[in-house]
Amino acid sequence: MRISKEHIAAHNEEHQADNEAHLAFLDAQLSKQGVTLSLLLDQLKDFQVAIPSWALGAGGTRFGRFSIGGEPGSLEDKLDDVGVIHALTQTAGAISLHIPWDIPKDTAAIKQRAEEHGIVFDAMNSNTFQDQQGQPFSYKHGSLSNSEKASRQLAIDHNIEVIQYGQELGSNALTVWLADGASFPGQNNFRKALQNTQESLHEIYSHLPQDWKLLVEYKPYEPNFYSTVIQDWGTSLMLAEGCGERAHTLVDLGHHLPNTNIEQIVATLMAKGRLGGFHFNDSKYGDDDLTCGSIKPYQLFLIFNELVYGMQNNDAGNPPLAWMIDASHNVKDPIEDLMQSLEAISIAYAQALLVDQQALEEAQRNHDVTMCQEILQRAYRTDVRPIVAAARAMAGGALDPLGLYRKLDVRGQLIGERGKTVVATGL
Amino acid sequence: MRISKEHIAAHNEEHQADNEAHLAFLDAQLSKQGVTLSLLLDQLKDFQVAIPSWALGAGGTRFGRFSIGGEPGSLEDKLDDVGVIHALTQTAGAISLHIPWDIPKDTAAIKQRAEEHGIVFDAMNSNTFQDQQGQPFSYKHGSLSNSEKASRQLAIDHNIEVIQYGQELGSNALTVWLADGASFPGQNNFRKALQNTQESLHEIYSHLPQDWKLLVEYKPYEPNFYSTVIQDWGTSLMLAEGCGERAHTLVDLGHHLPNTNIEQIVATLMAKGRLGGFHFNDSKYGDDDLTCGSIKPYQLFLIFNELVYGMQNNDAGNPPLAWMIDASHNVKDPIEDLMQSLEAISIAYAQALLVDQQALEEAQRNHDVTMCQEILQRAYRTDVRPIVAAARAMAGGALDPLGLYRKLDVRGQLIGERGKTVVATGL
Amino acid sequence: MRISKEHIAAHNEEHQADNEAHLAFLDAQLSKQGVTLSLLLDQLKDFQVAIPSWALGAGGTRFGRFSIGGEPGSLEDKLDDVGVIHALTQTAGAISLHIPWDIPKDTAAIKQRAEEHGIVFDAMNSNTFQDQQGQPFSYKHGSLSNSEKASRQLAIDHNIEVIQYGQELGSNALTVWLADGASFPGQNNFRKALQNTQESLHEIYSHLPQDWKLLVEYKPYEPNFYSTVIQDWGTSLMLAEGCGERAHTLVDLGHHLPNTNIEQIVATLMAKGRLGGFHFNDSKYGDDDLTCGSIKPYQLFLIFNELVYGMQNNDAGNPPLAWMIDASHNVKDPIEDLMQSLEAISIAYAQALLVDQQALEEAQRNHDVTMCQEILQRAYRTDVRPIVAAARAMAGGALDPLGLYRKLDVRGQLIGERGKTVVATGL
Amino acid sequence: MRISKEHIAAHNEEHQADNEAHLAFLDAQLSKQGVTLSLLLDQLKDFQVAIPSWALGAGGTRFGRFSIGGEPGSLEDKLDDVGVIHALTQTAGAISLHIPWDIPKDTAAIKQRAEEHGIVFDAMNSNTFQDQQGQPFSYKHGSLSNSEKASRQLAIDHNIEVIQYGQELGSNALTVWLADGASFPGQNNFRKALQNTQESLHEIYSHLPQDWKLLVEYKPYEPNFYSTVIQDWGTSLMLAEGCGERAHTLVDLGHHLPNTNIEQIVATLMAKGRLGGFHFNDSKYGDDDLTCGSIKPYQLFLIFNELVYGMQNNDAGNPPLAWMIDASHNVKDPIEDLMQSLEAISIAYAQALLVDQQALEEAQRNHDVTMCQEILQRAYRTDVRPIVAAARAMAGGALDPLGLYRKLDVRGQLIGERGKTVVATGL
Repeated sequence: MRISKEHIAAHNEEHQADNEAHLAFLDAQLSKQGVTLSLLLDQLKDFQVAIPSWALGAGGTRFGRFSIGGEPGSLEDKLDDVGVIHALTQTAGAISLHIPWDIPKDTAAIKQRAEEHGIVFDAMNSNTFQDQQGQPFSYKHGSLSNSEKASRQLAIDHNIEVIQYGQELGSNALTVWLADGASFPGQNNFRKALQNTQESLHEIYSHLPQDWKLLVEYKPYEPNFYSTVIQDWGTSLMLAEGCGERAHTLVDLGHHLPNTNIEQIVATLMAKGRLGGFHFNDSKYGDDDLTCGSIKPYQLFLIFNELVYGMQNNDAGNPPLAWMIDASHNVKDPIEDLMQSLEAISIAYAQALLVDQQALEEAQRNHDVTMCQEILQRAYRTDVRPIVAAARAMAGGALDPLGLYRKLDVRGQLIGERGKTVVATGL
Repeated sequence: MRISKEHIAAHNEEHQADNEAHLAFLDAQLSKQGVTLSLLLDQLKDFQVAIPSWALGAGGTRFGRFSIGGEPGSLEDKLDDVGVIHALTQTAGAISLHIPWDIPKDTAAIKQRAEEHGIVFDAMNSNTFQDQQGQPFSYKHGSLSNSEKASRQLAIDHNIEVIQYGQELGSNALTVWLADGASFPGQNNFRKALQNTQESLHEIYSHLPQDWKLLVEYKPYEPNFYSTVIQDWGTSLMLAEGCGERAHTLVDLGHHLPNTNIEQIVATLMAKGRLGGFHFNDSKYGDDDLTCGSIKPYQLFLIFNELVYGMQNNDAGNPPLAWMIDASHNVKDPIEDLMQSLEAISIAYAQALLVDQQALEEAQRNHDVTMCQEILQRAYRTDVRPIVAAARAMAGGALDPLGLYRKLDVRGQLIGERGKTVVATGL
Repeated sequence: MRISKEHIAAHNEEHQADNEAHLAFLDAQLSKQGVTLSLLLDQLKDFQVAIPSWALGAGGTRFGRFSIGGEPGSLEDKLDDVGVIHALTQTAGAISLHIPWDIPKDTAAIKQRAEEHGIVFDAMNSNTFQDQQGQPFSYKHGSLSNSEKASRQLAIDHNIEVIQYGQELGSNALTVWLADGASFPGQNNFRKALQNTQESLHEIYSHLPQDWKLLVEYKPYEPNFYSTVIQDWGTSLMLAEGCGERAHTLVDLGHHLPNTNIEQIVATLMAKGRLGGFHFNDSKYGDDDLTCGSIKPYQLFLIFNELVYGMQNNDAGNPPLAWMIDASHNVKDPIEDLMQSLEAISIAYAQALLVDQQALEEAQRNHDVTMCQEILQRAYRTDVRPIVAAARAMAGGALDPLGLYRKLDVRGQLIGERGKTVVATGL
Repeated sequence: MRISKEHIAAHNEEHQADNEAHLAFLDAQLSKQGVTLSLLLDQLKDFQVAIPSWALGAGGTRFGRFSIGGEPGSLEDKLDDVGVIHALTQTAGAISLHIPWDIPKDTAAIKQRAEEHGIVFDAMNSNTFQDQQGQPFSYKHGSLSNSEKASRQLAIDHNIEVIQYGQELGSNALTVWLADGASFPGQNNFRKALQNTQESLHEIYSHLPQDWKLLVEYKPYEPNFYSTVIQDWGTSLMLAEGCGERAHTLVDLGHHLPNTNIEQIVATLMAKGRLGGFHFNDSKYGDDDLTCGSIKPYQLFLIFNELVYGMQNNDAGNPPLAWMIDASHNVKDPIEDLMQSLEAISIAYAQALLVDQQALEEAQRNHDVTMCQEILQRAYRTDVRPIVAAARAMAGGALDPLGLYRKLDVRGQLIGERGKTVVATGL
């Protein structure tokens, strides 16, 4: 199942008049605020978010999983699914692979297929939170932090192998999410676990190609329920700095304790030049991995406000960010869910671009707190949907991706092609 | 300082063209969705939120307080401040008094002054969380729940007195916020404290005029830090049901544990016909008492979505709700802050009125989770600001209340009238 | 693998002198405080906690699972494992089965095997959070709350079937844990979901034998991440009261929002006569299902303090409680883990029995908060381990169950009997 | 009111036989575990915790405050109160002053009075969270982080002045708790606030005498409710490292988001050699400032376990720690409350000293999670009260400080001397 240009053209023709009318109205409004719509559209058009390969099948919890039909049974299928998303939205031009779930058998063929979809290979992901069949040493009690050298070395070697797969595919970043930790007080020696992790990361870093980045994720809990070795941004930053200049912190929105001010963490990391990438999702309770913007859209906007400010005022030389969605699709069609996430991300980005930075700076200088809030909310309350749609259409995508996806009955066709019961590799 | 009709007329004339243009555009859009703008405007025009008398001065924390100038030094001043807000917004047509901070000396004069501002007297608030000078028994270890009869009786009598003040003023509800609880394990006998509270509330209820309601607030912690007698909605409902039909639960948005799904509580209480009123504010951490919509505007919308649904499908005979803001203005001008809250509340209400209930019901029936989200977010993402402004102007308010407030330099005039150092009664 | 009386006798002989010495010392101390040690020992000896059948294999998370060897591959094996625990501790004289994971094929044989181990059948557990192969209607979008009658009826019938299995085995309670809820705003109609649940529970209740109880569990989130139909004790109590007198609330320690005062909930439910049972575990973040007492042992004590008070002052006629452990054993040997939980529960119970209730009441009456804390902590800080051990030995158990379990190499023998790779049914 | 040696001697004589009997029993037990009681007693005897000068009066919340009688009305009175506590416990040999609440008028006299009580001057505390009367620039919108140079300089100068007071008194550390932050999104520029703070701290640091330490406290929220400039340990560490070698992080137990693993933070900071000091208290919800050990005594033990390990394995050259209680006494007599805190801290320290570090290391190496837990809990469950009492008595303190305090009716005498209505300076 592929979405053709003709499908999109026909669809857009149908919706164009409405969107243009709304856009023209917004243009008139925004130009009074000093916003140049065309610049905004250009910035949105260039914005691309990677899709993780493991998110194209139905997700689940420890209490089980309910399948959807037509799940991708191979890496090729996964590329095709991202291809569908990218064709419709033109904002998903990258895939982020997970090893060993997505080991390419024929690298050249895989690269070609990706190219046909206009997709590049974003950060590679290693897996040291599960044992693979026949594995000589276990990760049950830790991988990069394990008190046993043999388990650590296995995990280090796995990460180096992941880099190699990535090099073949044209990726240039390795994301390390370390599940290591303890479920009970006393189980771990905190200091030794931290030292082991630092040394293991350093060894991986020493195998990193010169144009690659190492992204170090953090998370307070789950799958360990008492402590996690890399529990917060402070620990991640400490480890990244201990590796070298090309090691950075990766922020996953769901990986925080209740009530954490994430946008402040983003600002701090960018001030240090150490924000490497982002895993987008949303959550109400823990690492819920829900659709972006489905629970806290204002927080998403505030985070983008910091990102935009940080990219526009990049004193510390923060590198370009690796953007990725990392959600779990337990009750929705994963493709629909991902398109809703992309829409929410684009909306938040567009709203953040609308913030009148000069007026904000002035209001902050005057301690005019009322006005600071007004300025942010003025941007946030603007209905930017037609702008996001127009940027998408300009790039060749659909004005209403979800509408077209349903009209073309893509899921129905995928079920026809792949059957009802195939289960995607991953969680 | 009073805002005259002429001030408002002149201001509105200046902004009318712009707002009408936006409104016309929205009207065209919404009518395609089956929304009749004029009905929407009528509903918004009728919507009134009470201002608590204690929120017109600068608030603070246990770490101190920074004054603003021109604070109201008397009940008359407070009425005037609400008068300013109401003149500008036409959505603040009620005041909620706190006894003993606002004991009216000349009831007739106070009533007349309120009437001049178009303000009625909403729910009365009692105070049994502080000792007043010369008080014969202390509330240090509890009031309505105190193990000593004398303290309980004092608190009961105080509440009855508050009802009497309210009757004179034309109020018809008593809100009981009970700070009683314990800061240490063992301090309280949970069961006896609950029983005492039930009996005390029952006695107060027995003194309630026939057309009055008793509103029972709940809160998990603060000022007690181990347990609070009425810790959650379940306890409040249990106590209200133990009193009688005119006792209801009052929801304060800040009075919940982290991550609580408040909109579900609202739906449950309305399903039981026991939601009595609302204290609006916003918060990130605890009972932060921030401006409504400043932190979690989507949550505010979801709550209004339940309120609108509940009012439109009122099987259980839930009574009309007592709406009130309950925020603390620590760093903003309280009048500005309250107007921002009113704006956020009106926006959330307007967005909720835009939800296509029929489509939502159908999507829910089809388990079409993607579409359920789309329907809610379609309403939420609509820029309803011009609608809210238009409704306000139709009722005689200003299109841009904050702008006019600043242009008229109301705070400057209040400082001129009242001085820089007066401190409003209250917290 | 069975633990013989000889094993235990030999082991106890070895440890008896030490324990007796400590016990004698404590007896002298406690008698000064007016505590009669023999009464305490009797109460402890009678205390039995059920083991859930699904907790005898290794648990896991959505990120995977690490097996242990010798897991029970059948209901018979599970009974044998509980048999080991009960032989060693004499406090695990009951098993709580889960249908369909534990459907007995030969009921008489199963009952006999249980009897040989001295084990009875505690509350039965139904499962409507997963679809079973070939199931005609899905629970993906809810079971007892589903908007479709067919799914609801399937779930009702399943619960009735579970009752029937339970009757054959001699159980007398049904525990309903309802995972139903929504992961996204708008997905569910809160009110209809609640009504459907009430009706479904009522129908199940109408099939309940006269000597049975219905236990209604609550949980704020997981596996749904926006809302859960039975989200808190208030909702559970409402539903239980809507069913009838034999319906009660079941408290699982891990099923609360951060910082919830659980002991107050326990006290409130007992004051209403509606506390039906308990699922013991411990947690730091969410429903972590850790070993009891491994994270918050003082909270466990405070809960037992309310339980003891409630049982001793049972004005509301609260029924005898169904005690059960509900933990997940991800990194420890499940049998060892369960024995650690039993030890922690017994310790908390013993400490609670030591609380000087009369002195506490007096200190509360005098508002002597310092002393209230002293009284509770005096009991808590007492080293009751020798008392718990002695009670266990008096009942025929081992003074040091964990020590004997290791000395006999029970796990090694189970691996020998069952192999390294069998996976227990369940999560 | 002073406690004489005779009072203590008479009291101890009465209780000595009992305590010795218990101690002898413990000695026999512990020696089997390889613990030398006399070493333990020595370590406990040397352990001193500072009392903050502001904690000797009744505390309160934003909702009010209930006085106790006999509060200290001057710095002299405060020293006398600490003197009472120290005479009774011999573990409170230091006071931590707050400027401007405790500016000494006659330094020599104050020093002499302290010396008479055996009290030294611990870390000095500055106050830039309140405006003092006549202050030329306000801290309303920040102090060290303020966007205005004038407010920053005022705050810097104040801190330098506090150092000078401290030098005169013999202190050697300055604690900076910075309340700066924002209550609303947009109010602050995160990056500039951080930079300003770094520069301000650096300037203060440059005025630090060579033998002094700078302790940088962190806190996630309150009195600001959206963001705090130094929101977590990561930010504090970053700022401390930016100052120099003698700047360190100070951990206040109440200054964390829900569910934070504090002991891991302690371990990490000690691994970096940057843990400077500790503010002890306890809490259930936020910065509740309750008596140490009153809510989570096991967490206190786990923290001490890391402290003991860190002090015994001090590879990174962590400096000696500044220990201090920082609690608020809202419902108890502050002196009693502080003595309960001291008792809980000493108990946790003693339990941590009992941990069999060698066995723990071995169990960790063997991934024997069950045994790791057993080892910690074996120490925690030991009733160390007689050991703590004996160490106190050896140092000249009372076996039962609270008992003696009440028997001597110290509070009654303080009320006699000072009256019922004096209010201590501070919060």
